[in-house]
Amino acid sequence: MARLQISDSEKKRAAVRILGISGSGRERSYNTALLEAAKTLVPEAAVLEILDLSRFQLFNEDLLAEMPEEIQEFKERVKQSDAVLFATPEYNYSVSAVLKNAIEWGNQPNNSWDGKPAAIISASISLRGGAGAQAHLRQIMVDLNMHPINQPQLLLARTGEKFDANLKLVDSASLKTLQSLLDALVEWSRRF
Amino acid sequence: MARLQISDSEKKRAAVRILGISGSGRERSYNTALLEAAKTLVPEAAVLEILDLSRFQLFNEDLLAEMPEEIQEFKERVKQSDAVLFATPEYNYSVSAVLKNAIEWGNQPNNSWDGKPAAIISASISLRGGAGAQAHLRQIMVDLNMHPINQPQLLLARTGEKFDANLKLVDSASLKTLQSLLDALVEWSRRF
Amino acid sequence: MARLQISDSEKKRAAVRILGISGSGRERSYNTALLEAAKTLVPEAAVLEILDLSRFQLFNEDLLAEMPEEIQEFKERVKQSDAVLFATPEYNYSVSAVLKNAIEWGNQPNNSWDGKPAAIISASISLRGGAGAQAHLRQIMVDLNMHPINQPQLLLARTGEKFDANLKLVDSASLKTLQSLLDALVEWSRRF
Amino acid sequence: MARLQISDSEKKRAAVRILGISGSGRERSYNTALLEAAKTLVPEAAVLEILDLSRFQLFNEDLLAEMPEEIQEFKERVKQSDAVLFATPEYNYSVSAVLKNAIEWGNQPNNSWDGKPAAIISASISLRGGAGAQAHLRQIMVDLNMHPINQPQLLLARTGEKFDANLKLVDSASLKTLQSLLDALVEWSRRF
Repeated sequence: MARLQISDSEKKRAAVRILGISGSGRERSYNTALLEAAKTLVPEAAVLEILDLSRFQLFNEDLLAEMPEEIQEFKERVKQSDAVLFATPEYNYSVSAVLKNAIEWGNQPNNSWDGKPAAIISASISLRGGAGAQAHLRQIMVDLNMHPINQPQLLLARTGEKFDANLKLVDSASLKTLQSLLDALVEWSRRF
Repeated sequence: MARLQISDSEKKRAAVRILGISGSGRERSYNTALLEAAKTLVPEAAVLEILDLSRFQLFNEDLLAEMPEEIQEFKERVKQSDAVLFATPEYNYSVSAVLKNAIEWGNQPNNSWDGKPAAIISASISLRGGAGAQAHLRQIMVDLNMHPINQPQLLLARTGEKFDANLKLVDSASLKTLQSLLDALVEWSRRF
Repeated sequence: MARLQISDSEKKRAAVRILGISGSGRERSYNTALLEAAKTLVPEAAVLEILDLSRFQLFNEDLLAEMPEEIQEFKERVKQSDAVLFATPEYNYSVSAVLKNAIEWGNQPNNSWDGKPAAIISASISLRGGAGAQAHLRQIMVDLNMHPINQPQLLLARTGEKFDANLKLVDSASLKTLQSLLDALVEWSRRF
Repeated sequence: MARLQISDSEKKRAAVRILGISGSGRERSYNTALLEAAKTLVPEAAVLEILDLSRFQLFNEDLLAEMPEEIQEFKERVKQSDAVLFATPEYNYSVSAVLKNAIEWGNQPNNSWDGKPAAIISASISLRGGAGAQAHLRQIMVDLNMHPINQPQLLLARTGEKFDANLKLVDSASLKTLQSLLDALVEWSRRF
């Protein structure tokens, strides 16, 4: 009954492909570590791929004609994803330049983010846990025409207590929220 | 009457040193053109210097120990300025990555922006003229502990009609607002 | 074949019930006038009801136990709607107290707005057309767990030129955008 | 040496008159309690008066011609103050309708807030402590042409632990921050 069997490639096609984008390029970044934790928690029906965009050149419209190859590839990956999971640090109450830069490259000359469902997670040493960065990112997503989920929210404050020495997320409440958030993102993505 | 004469160097010391920072690295940037217009309108009691920061490396805390020389110099210029004039494009309802990146370098490891008076101008093809970018920049300045003036505001929409072919600002209403804004910034700076 | 016939009451049940909420209580409000225009443009598959909430008492948690009847009714109407269309003036770069007050009553003690699809329109004499009010309202909706569409956007500036003496919207470009926005809202609502 | 003596009335004239405005009308409001705490901590060179504006009618431009007497008096008090201290709850990531309503009455038909120095404090049961409300209020103050201090910030989360049963602020770290904030506000006010 070959028709009832689903090949691996078909499964992969059916899975929700989530792109994990970290706004930090630090070797030991809590936000990248959050994405690594997400990778282990992502529901079976989904796959999560993490991209590093912290070495990109600064966006400049004059460069659109001669776009670096790594950025062309980045735009292609965004376009082919089913959903985007942003992990953003908070610098000066806003998203990092690293993240904003990747967003601008993704948006020009054509908008690779258009219509994508999304979710935001953030880790920050401050008590606010990245609330300002999340608020700015949501406003940016209106222009990108992205559709972020509202709940649950994950704003990790006091990061030092929640990761172990190897940057593994060990706080059980945070792990549970992250799991719910991933479930919600996958369910939300199925509407699009 | 030597005491009544003021030497050139003394004049320079007394003048309000305004740092003009453009958020765009485009060859033909309307925002850099706004700063060039400001240079011709700045009151006698002030000087305006324009910096190019569009070629900086992306900010990364791991690089703080080996900070590029051009960025060290940039931080020094910020520190020595009496006021900052930001000219920001609006990308995705926010400031550009170019501008946010310079802000982050200026803020770490010590905050060169601390306590500076400031003003914002923006040019954008959209009808909103950069209102979203200005709003985000003001929130960012709270964390930087900067003190922006509130009025007048310059949000240049429909840029095509307001500059000539050589990117010279020729719209008389805009020129007048820019002049008032510079006067207000200089007066405001004297309080600090 | 009675089963194939759809009665009027069934049609009405199937229609998308949009609640139109104006943030202004002025007799001659441009924002209420926008909702009136929307009423004439709403697609056949939808109905739009406009509520007046400008006479509500100021929200106070101490009053939740003895909630005024008109507010109980308001909450019920919100709950029974399929989508919400906010028409908001911009006062001081934010939504009006009239609108915020209705939102707070709708949100307490249980959240009547929960999960609703939504859209925002605004009219303002300023050049920005209400961009600040729309931005704040979107942030408020994150907490309410509402799902606003991103596009198209309707921010009516220079209102004097766009309505006739009877406050009828006569500007054809605005009418067209409003029509598209209503179509988009109805289509978006069907996903929920 | 009568001229060297300063009479009580002169002292009072010289003092910085701070207007304390609570965004909550609850009987047992943490934000009003914060203002009460501020009253005991205000520097000798200043006086703090707390206003109740939670019973105002909803703002409506049609009512400007027949403005209620209590609102006329409110506007007069704002005008005569040297500085404003806002204590705002956070409802739906924004300021309360009670506070926004008072702001609108103060702003129309002439802007009583114009040019005033200000500070914000907030208490909220949420972990964010009112960060969203403070951010919105700062944007609103740009239009009002007010000048808020940036530091220190007081965002009281977990309010239950910080007040005693009589709503007296007893948390020593919070008391210390509040004292510094009042000192900073008074010093800042002297520049205007």
